[in-house]
Amino acid sequence: MEQLNRKEEIIVTAARLFYEKGYKAISMRDIAAAMDIKAASLYNHIKSKQEILSEIILKVAEEFTVGMECVVAENSSAIKKIEKVIELHIDITVNHSEALAALNNDWMHLEELDLNAFVMMREDYEQNFRKIIKQGIDTGELKPHHPEVILFSILSTLRTLYLWYQKRGKLDVNILKKDMISVLINGIV
Amino acid sequence: MEQLNRKEEIIVTAARLFYEKGYKAISMRDIAAAMDIKAASLYNHIKSKQEILSEIILKVAEEFTVGMECVVAENSSAIKKIEKVIELHIDITVNHSEALAALNNDWMHLEELDLNAFVMMREDYEQNFRKIIKQGIDTGELKPHHPEVILFSILSTLRTLYLWYQKRGKLDVNILKKDMISVLINGIV
Repeated sequence: MEQLNRKEEIIVTAARLFYEKGYKAISMRDIAAAMDIKAASLYNHIKSKQEILSEIILKVAEEFTVGMECVVAENSSAIKKIEKVIELHIDITVNHSEALAALNNDWMHLEELDLNAFVMMREDYEQNFRKIIKQGIDTGELKPHHPEVILFSILSTLRTLYLWYQKRGKLDVNILKKDMISVLINGIV
Repeated sequence: MEQLNRKEEIIVTAARLFYEKGYKAISMRDIAAAMDIKAASLYNHIKSKQEILSEIILKVAEEFTVGMECVVAENSSAIKKIEKVIELHIDITVNHSEALAALNNDWMHLEELDLNAFVMMREDYEQNFRKIIKQGIDTGELKPHHPEVILFSILSTLRTLYLWYQKRGKLDVNILKKDMISVLINGIV
């Protein structure tokens, strides 16, 4: 395992505790106890529980943002882009399920500036996805369904994947990618 | 509008308040105030806030259960059955979005007996859906993907539909049914 600096260690520990007990139930004292250090020394590295939450959520939100920007910049078909977006979600789900739980359950507890940054990233992400879908409908690659129905059908599945993946955690990630891309794009028949 | 008896009126009012402010934030006093009656007289009709929650959640859970049992009992193809399940979800979403919000956000606050009943209904529901999917794979109607991936892809979309439908509430329900059945079954290409 790579060496984490103390701040990263705090964030990783907190993410796990938030995940297990919920953000609201966990205090800075609990985080210090889990790391076997004094609560006071946490504050040498980080100023509040909210700052920890913001580090967790904004980091994973940026991963989505950067990933989506790379996909949009590609010179490829809409379908290829949608496949890449599905893979992006599966990779982030597999690698950062605790951060995704914090993002989904606790984003509303971010302080105002971070909250605004998060909401803007999420809206840009959806807007980029919507553009890819409209591009696909315009070029005739996708069937001319209501673009919002397509967007919602795919995003709702990808965004709740972390919940399901934990329960059924044994599924091989490559099988998951292959089957999920096929189901979401080609349907089940 | 049909005439509600007092108990039904309490449940409808409470469902709206739980939806707007969250189950935890609402007291029996708030419910009484919204109905312009004395808090004490609520207790002539219902014994606790938990009983109200249970009425709301179990009623809509039973609607899913009965709907699913009718679909399973049909002598039709797996695809036809899946279409019916999608329609069932859309109808319940359109008619009972406040109850679905309570079901999704607050089921864990049910008291033990009701909680067990709810969890059992939800598991039976998933099990029936799983059987339909396996039937479809066995008969060759559905592609031989991992049945859990198919189940999750469809259910995750249907279960979060109430959130999306509220935001995009203007979409005609018949267009929604047609497009969603097509997207979930035939895919987007």
